[in-house]
Amino acid sequence: MTDLNLRLATRADVPAIRALLGDDKLGQTREDMSEEGLQKYLKAFEAINNTADNELWVAENTGKHNTGEIVGTWQVTYIPYLSRGGNVRCLIEAVRTASNRRGEGIGYTMMEFALEQARQRGCLLAQLTTDKTRGDAHRFYQKLGFISTHEGMKIQL
Amino acid sequence: MTDLNLRLATRADVPAIRALLGDDKLGQTREDMSEEGLQKYLKAFEAINNTADNELWVAENTGKHNTGEIVGTWQVTYIPYLSRGGNVRCLIEAVRTASNRRGEGIGYTMMEFALEQARQRGCLLAQLTTDKTRGDAHRFYQKLGFISTHEGMKIQL
Repeated sequence: MTDLNLRLATRADVPAIRALLGDDKLGQTREDMSEEGLQKYLKAFEAINNTADNELWVAENTGKHNTGEIVGTWQVTYIPYLSRGGNVRCLIEAVRTASNRRGEGIGYTMMEFALEQARQRGCLLAQLTTDKTRGDAHRFYQKLGFISTHEGMKIQL
Repeated sequence: MTDLNLRLATRADVPAIRALLGDDKLGQTREDMSEEGLQKYLKAFEAINNTADNELWVAENTGKHNTGEIVGTWQVTYIPYLSRGGNVRCLIEAVRTASNRRGEGIGYTMMEFALEQARQRGCLLAQLTTDKTRGDAHRFYQKLGFISTHEGMKIQL
């Protein structure tokens, strides 16, 4: 089992998080890995950090040979709704684990932690969307107890 | 065509919004329509109103015989992400139109307005989840240009 430290991301983690986003079959065509491009990611980090309802997390490998290596990331957004008698819902997105560290349970540790945090915050429901081509991810979330009840629809603006 | 005024909801609209949420095949079993229950919805409204990233909207019928009647509602959440080069995404949820006012284009007017607002705010993407049993809603969103690319997964906490 990988020794992990799950903690809120700092500005210094942004290059590593960008690398995880780009280290992905869908992300590799969507992310800007250039030197200049980093500024856009830093700006987005500040936007996330400046809102009380968004939290960007990282999983840091604390094994003795890998101290500080970022092997996973996710973002949660806590959203108040009137529906279901008024509740705060936890939206989980941008979940990534390093492609060379799959199958070690890193993702489970991250998501179980995220769900426990949402419970402690009083959320009744957590939700996410996952691309229909990511079959492995669907099975992963189903094992955690997620049910595929909804269509996730998107539109480019 | 119904004359509509699209505006941010106020505290005084909460009973009408709750009625729309309950006036729904899924919502009718989930919403608390009791007198005491209203407090929970008012509290949730304050939570929404106290964040800069959430907006609760209503469509008000301004026709001369129906002034002030609330015939639709939706909520948007603007969420900053690192992915796709850093962007703010528009999440649209809790979309309802009055069941006796379907087919008049109220929903289209609401959603086209919401998407235009997201564009003006610089969002690259808008997204939503819609229950798999709501076939009419899927066709409605597809006509607006939404594509069903994702599984929408939820877990009760």
